[in-house]
Amino acid sequence: MSAPLQSLAYFDDAYERRVARLKEERAEGVKVIGTFCLFVPDEIIFAAGADRIVLCGGKTDPIALAEQSLPRNICPLIKSSFGAVVDACCGGTISCPHVPLVDVVVAEATCDGKKKMYEILSGYLPTYVLDLPQKPESPGALAYFVSEIRLFGKYLEGLTGNTVSDEALRREIRSANETRRLLHRLFAIRQRDPPPIRGTDVLRVMQRQFFLAPADFREGIRRLCEELDRFTPGPCARPRILISGCPMAAGNTKIADIIEQKGAVIVAEESCTGTRSFWDFVDESGDPWTALGERYLAIPCACMTPNDWRIDRIVELAGKYNVDGVVYYTLQFCTGYNIERLRVQQALKKLKIPFLAIESDYGDADTEQIGIRVDAFLEMIG
Amino acid sequence: MSAPLQSLAYFDDAYERRVARLKEERAEGVKVIGTFCLFVPDEIIFAAGADRIVLCGGKTDPIALAEQSLPRNICPLIKSSFGAVVDACCGGTISCPHVPLVDVVVAEATCDGKKKMYEILSGYLPTYVLDLPQKPESPGALAYFVSEIRLFGKYLEGLTGNTVSDEALRREIRSANETRRLLHRLFAIRQRDPPPIRGTDVLRVMQRQFFLAPADFREGIRRLCEELDRFTPGPCARPRILISGCPMAAGNTKIADIIEQKGAVIVAEESCTGTRSFWDFVDESGDPWTALGERYLAIPCACMTPNDWRIDRIVELAGKYNVDGVVYYTLQFCTGYNIERLRVQQALKKLKIPFLAIESDYGDADTEQIGIRVDAFLEMIG
Repeated sequence: MSAPLQSLAYFDDAYERRVARLKEERAEGVKVIGTFCLFVPDEIIFAAGADRIVLCGGKTDPIALAEQSLPRNICPLIKSSFGAVVDACCGGTISCPHVPLVDVVVAEATCDGKKKMYEILSGYLPTYVLDLPQKPESPGALAYFVSEIRLFGKYLEGLTGNTVSDEALRREIRSANETRRLLHRLFAIRQRDPPPIRGTDVLRVMQRQFFLAPADFREGIRRLCEELDRFTPGPCARPRILISGCPMAAGNTKIADIIEQKGAVIVAEESCTGTRSFWDFVDESGDPWTALGERYLAIPCACMTPNDWRIDRIVELAGKYNVDGVVYYTLQFCTGYNIERLRVQQALKKLKIPFLAIESDYGDADTEQIGIRVDAFLEMIG
Repeated sequence: MSAPLQSLAYFDDAYERRVARLKEERAEGVKVIGTFCLFVPDEIIFAAGADRIVLCGGKTDPIALAEQSLPRNICPLIKSSFGAVVDACCGGTISCPHVPLVDVVVAEATCDGKKKMYEILSGYLPTYVLDLPQKPESPGALAYFVSEIRLFGKYLEGLTGNTVSDEALRREIRSANETRRLLHRLFAIRQRDPPPIRGTDVLRVMQRQFFLAPADFREGIRRLCEELDRFTPGPCARPRILISGCPMAAGNTKIADIIEQKGAVIVAEESCTGTRSFWDFVDESGDPWTALGERYLAIPCACMTPNDWRIDRIVELAGKYNVDGVVYYTLQFCTGYNIERLRVQQALKKLKIPFLAIESDYGDADTEQIGIRVDAFLEMIG
């Protein structure tokens, strides 16, 4: 399991090409949309002939700048993302090189922190607000969300001058489903015992999903899966850990790194940078808007209520991946995932699956303390 | 201004009568609905022949119990409300005597903390979830919200066995508008210089709004206004303060007390326990469901985006009440109001209206430090 995977290098090369390509695109007049959340359907953006990159911040650097405008006691991802935009828009260089590549950002109404941060962000970058119902099983929720994504489509038509045809949408739905199928293939490989790839490697690959062009990303996943299929597993790697909770945006691999440095192997991530991004497919028959609405509204994020789907998903993954324990990861001050922790903990307790909760920011101050807790947890379940 | 107002005693008497009456009602089979938020239209509850009390917690006592289930770093109102329910449902006596009076609680999808707390609460009390769109100006938002309140009406019909007729709704809309008119009368009296009543007295009265029967509450407000109209103002009370921000639920008068103990007078509250509860009327002509939807969806709460209506309201109040400064009050960890602080501050800065932000919990630990900051602020603007 410690042999370097050749195919991982592809993602770095693809990154460089992608940055160059985005610059060319913008010179050609292609609009680039910045998003911060899985609830924004990429399919609509691509169908409008626009491109998209995800701007969620995983780095510590921009946080101090963000705290000049935002409260300190909100989640680091929001502060990092905001700080990067402010820095870039004010000509700074401390943070994200991607911000100058976007024309517009989409502000989806998910958690309180993001929803309100976007209002301030709109002073720096053009911002489009996409509303979400919060009770996805309510009878009127789907119709409202479909009306919202249709409006978003109209907005993109105005921005790009292109029509978002049903045909283009169907094409992009097939494309996105192809990506989802490949990610299922990659994740299925991780069910092996031992898994032929570290969780930290998968995490870094998954983070690229949000920046690379879909076709390039798929090519990388294909190569990776092929290499892993040829791979001869080493000695049994235990314990097997499922991480569940908040996203780990590019730049943030802190908790995953600690867990694997302590000798465990992460076999799956129930998060936006894990299964939540690809698990469910969009129906390819019928009205594409409704199909998109149904699929995206069912993303089991803690911003939804009730969110039993997420509990079910975690239990499903814990079984399918034959895990020895679940690490429940939350970004500091993430109210939604922090409160939902109890229900997850209760569900896993019933199944006698060991559970460790870690709430952390992007800094180093708690790294040692978390290491000690992870050590104790692994010893207990090992 | 320091003479005791005779009419304030009415509210205490009415409270005792109300508790007795609620117990009788329940014995008679009347359903009592517990709510936690202004976004739940009382009119629908009353039109269904049910009664309602608001269960928002302003006391410290239940918080330790709540923290056994909820994260510590969420707002004290949510923890206090939750702890009171858990305590009451587990036979405890530390907290709220009102919880045993309700049959059902309504969980409105407003902020992350409440939305997710309700999921855990549903293990203790029957809970009905009312969804809210978060972008009230979106074309589909009103229709979705109206569908949600209609569903809520259907639910209440099932619970009570009564029909929520348009006629009953119109009657309750007129009743609630009458309360709103009386509160406008009370608040208009506070525009006088000096105002004949302290802000802390008004706050305690406003907190009763959420527990008393509407007719009793109105009777109290009528008596209070009449007494204030006969009142001869004392010497000029300055500085005049507008409080803006989070609700101060019954039991929590901490910041208002500090401000007035330091010699200032609070002349208005832009909050759920102030203007947000009564400022806007429901249209009495046309379809009552749509009229309710329009009015409630326009409540300028920080859970909405954008929330320029709130900025406009604060600026309007600052002018109308001729204030010398604004104290921006937030419950600790209230992400929405904490982030919105910046936009309010910027708007007031343009108008050269002094601004002090205070974020606090229900404890005493920061009382002295807040006192020092308030002192400095009052000296600066005095």
